[in-house]
Amino acid sequence: MSYSRHEPGLNQCVWSVVSGSQGTMSAVKLEECRERIRAELDNVVDFWLKYSHDTVHGGFFTCIGKDGKVYDELKYVWLQGRQVWMYCRLYRSMDRFHKPEILEAAKAGGAFLRKYARVSGSSGQWKCAFCLTRDGKAVKIQRTIFSECFYIMAMDELSRVTGDKDMQLEAEQMMEQLIFWVQKDSSGLGRPQLPGDVPTNGMAVPMMLLCLVQQLTEGRGQEVVQKYRELGSWCVQQILQHIQRDGTAILENVSLEGAELPGCQGRLQNPGHALEAGWFLLQFSAERGDEELQRTAIDKFVELPYQYGWDKEHGGLFYFLDVDGHCPTQLEWSMKLWWPHCEALIAFLMAYSQTKRPELLERFSQVYEYIFSHFSDAENGEWFGYLTQEGKVALDFKGGPFKGFFHVPRCLYMCERILDDLLENKD
Amino acid sequence: MSYSRHEPGLNQCVWSVVSGSQGTMSAVKLEECRERIRAELDNVVDFWLKYSHDTVHGGFFTCIGKDGKVYDELKYVWLQGRQVWMYCRLYRSMDRFHKPEILEAAKAGGAFLRKYARVSGSSGQWKCAFCLTRDGKAVKIQRTIFSECFYIMAMDELSRVTGDKDMQLEAEQMMEQLIFWVQKDSSGLGRPQLPGDVPTNGMAVPMMLLCLVQQLTEGRGQEVVQKYRELGSWCVQQILQHIQRDGTAILENVSLEGAELPGCQGRLQNPGHALEAGWFLLQFSAERGDEELQRTAIDKFVELPYQYGWDKEHGGLFYFLDVDGHCPTQLEWSMKLWWPHCEALIAFLMAYSQTKRPELLERFSQVYEYIFSHFSDAENGEWFGYLTQEGKVALDFKGGPFKGFFHVPRCLYMCERILDDLLENKD
Repeated sequence: MSYSRHEPGLNQCVWSVVSGSQGTMSAVKLEECRERIRAELDNVVDFWLKYSHDTVHGGFFTCIGKDGKVYDELKYVWLQGRQVWMYCRLYRSMDRFHKPEILEAAKAGGAFLRKYARVSGSSGQWKCAFCLTRDGKAVKIQRTIFSECFYIMAMDELSRVTGDKDMQLEAEQMMEQLIFWVQKDSSGLGRPQLPGDVPTNGMAVPMMLLCLVQQLTEGRGQEVVQKYRELGSWCVQQILQHIQRDGTAILENVSLEGAELPGCQGRLQNPGHALEAGWFLLQFSAERGDEELQRTAIDKFVELPYQYGWDKEHGGLFYFLDVDGHCPTQLEWSMKLWWPHCEALIAFLMAYSQTKRPELLERFSQVYEYIFSHFSDAENGEWFGYLTQEGKVALDFKGGPFKGFFHVPRCLYMCERILDDLLENKD
Repeated sequence: MSYSRHEPGLNQCVWSVVSGSQGTMSAVKLEECRERIRAELDNVVDFWLKYSHDTVHGGFFTCIGKDGKVYDELKYVWLQGRQVWMYCRLYRSMDRFHKPEILEAAKAGGAFLRKYARVSGSSGQWKCAFCLTRDGKAVKIQRTIFSECFYIMAMDELSRVTGDKDMQLEAEQMMEQLIFWVQKDSSGLGRPQLPGDVPTNGMAVPMMLLCLVQQLTEGRGQEVVQKYRELGSWCVQQILQHIQRDGTAILENVSLEGAELPGCQGRLQNPGHALEAGWFLLQFSAERGDEELQRTAIDKFVELPYQYGWDKEHGGLFYFLDVDGHCPTQLEWSMKLWWPHCEALIAFLMAYSQTKRPELLERFSQVYEYIFSHFSDAENGEWFGYLTQEGKVALDFKGGPFKGFFHVPRCLYMCERILDDLLENKD
């Protein structure tokens, strides 16, 4: 087994392993890698503990500049929910984060969410706002399900560390509402029904629902597991519908019957999203012992998106692509965003840990090098989120309307845990 | 008077006028410039006549690739209305475009719009869709006024070439609806009223209304002119509220009382928009003989946005900026878009034509050089729309969801006419 150095110009190359005593060498490299990831996670947690807490009104600031200064006081609900979730997950699963400071921050964030995020929608259904003022007044409501998804994640995870059964119940009730919108009747989301607006299967919806099924059932009793069992399988089927063109492409939007849609919408590819779906499917296949699904996840949702999504010229994953090679209409299509790289890092490491196929670790190393030489900010901590195609920082803030305390720490947390397992079982 | 060559590396430098026989030389250069603009307008009109007409379902394709191929059949209503308007304007004001082919295309586009664009909104009010399928089914409705604005522009201009009084009446009726939304009650637009969503004065609304006042009143009888006179003055006052920070900045969003708003929204600058407002105000000040407004328009809406909006390193106008120098949250903030450069070209030439101040012509030349060396596509015709900060083509299509037959031909048409006037009166 021999790792090649993919990008000779980069500083962070930890993978230039010579052949020979490979077994030992790769374990050393993995160990180095784990240490770096662990230190980076500490750094990132410190950054958000230090700069994001609103001790006056509660909740978290999410618009945080490169050096930690708050540049806008709006509170984005996706990011409030994700930060609560992440704090709780770290608190309950990693000893060094099992600290009162983190628990208190999670509880304060949860209280802010419960007090302000829910707003009454149409037909007497509850919606969650997308954005709140600093003191909790609703500014905007999206006509999608995602604010609610992150609200559920926050409530379920918080109920696990506080033992609050009401909170768990609230998460499950909101989940019922969500399932109703997705599977029965979406009119409560507030979008007018238009004759040209054909319902579609967008990748994000079954992915988020699958993530929630895994969240709500993990370690719970059989009753809860059974309750969501069928929904989990349904989500997987919906995700697999996105394999198109005889297995050569993952498309972001397909028809409800799983057929390709016309135009830009139908040809759209989002490699980072496919890779994220990949590791969701890998987790699911491991839980159910489904080897065929594992193979499909690795072939189609991990290796394939990397093949078409990686920029051969400048490195990094494109944000959007068009399967026929047209130019996408999204102005940011060629930018390199932090989160697809987070998802890729998890996906390759998880795929490697399940199969031990060396080429998967090689891909992991390539993504790892790109991340640490481009996104990670050695000067002020945390990561930049948005690079040009060439890899230059294009937007220099650490937190914004869509970047909070989530993708980076989730990636580092997942990778550290997988590396712990790999290194524990290395012999 | 001496023009300096701003960007020595560019091919298209037509302004390197040596001092000496300046008067004659500058007239020669202006003449060259007019010829180039005239040829470019012919080329652009040909491009859209050739590639955009849907002879099966009517209306115009707007998603057109770099070489003229349609890559998506969706029909964006802003662009349908704008194309009808532009064809009619060319037909009735420039001899060489007074051709049956252009009139028929405008009428066919107008018929498609009247048949399909209007959809019933809430409270029995009419809305216009934002996007239609190829055969006219509504796909999306925006909760803003802009589809309706371009519908009005199309109907009014079309009524001028066809003499159809019903169409003119329809434009005026839609205008009444629009004024009601803006000045009385916006609930018909479909946005929920949220406690944190404070009403604001965004630059786009008074600009569009002022544009419509000028459209509906141009050359009409005193009754129509009087009807909209007060509204025109109101729009100007609303636009002038965007002059902030003791006259040192134009901000895109202010409070209804004309005060600065907090956060990113309040600090946002859109130099291209300010420049477009600049020439709207210059037209208005000329109509009303208002010299003070003319001075304000040039100082604050033409010269100032250029000062802060022009990229000193790479040339071109930034799309968005933050007045305090924070990084904007719009991913595309540093890109160079075609339309701000169109607006700048018109604004500087109009300002020069009204004042004959040489530095304004110098700015015109700088924008002109940037445009012809970056946006104009000598190979396949028309202009690219979206460049990276460094000036590389980032999205290579000629038409997309927001780029149609409008900013480029309007700019070339306006500049050609102003140059005609300047050259006619050059002695």
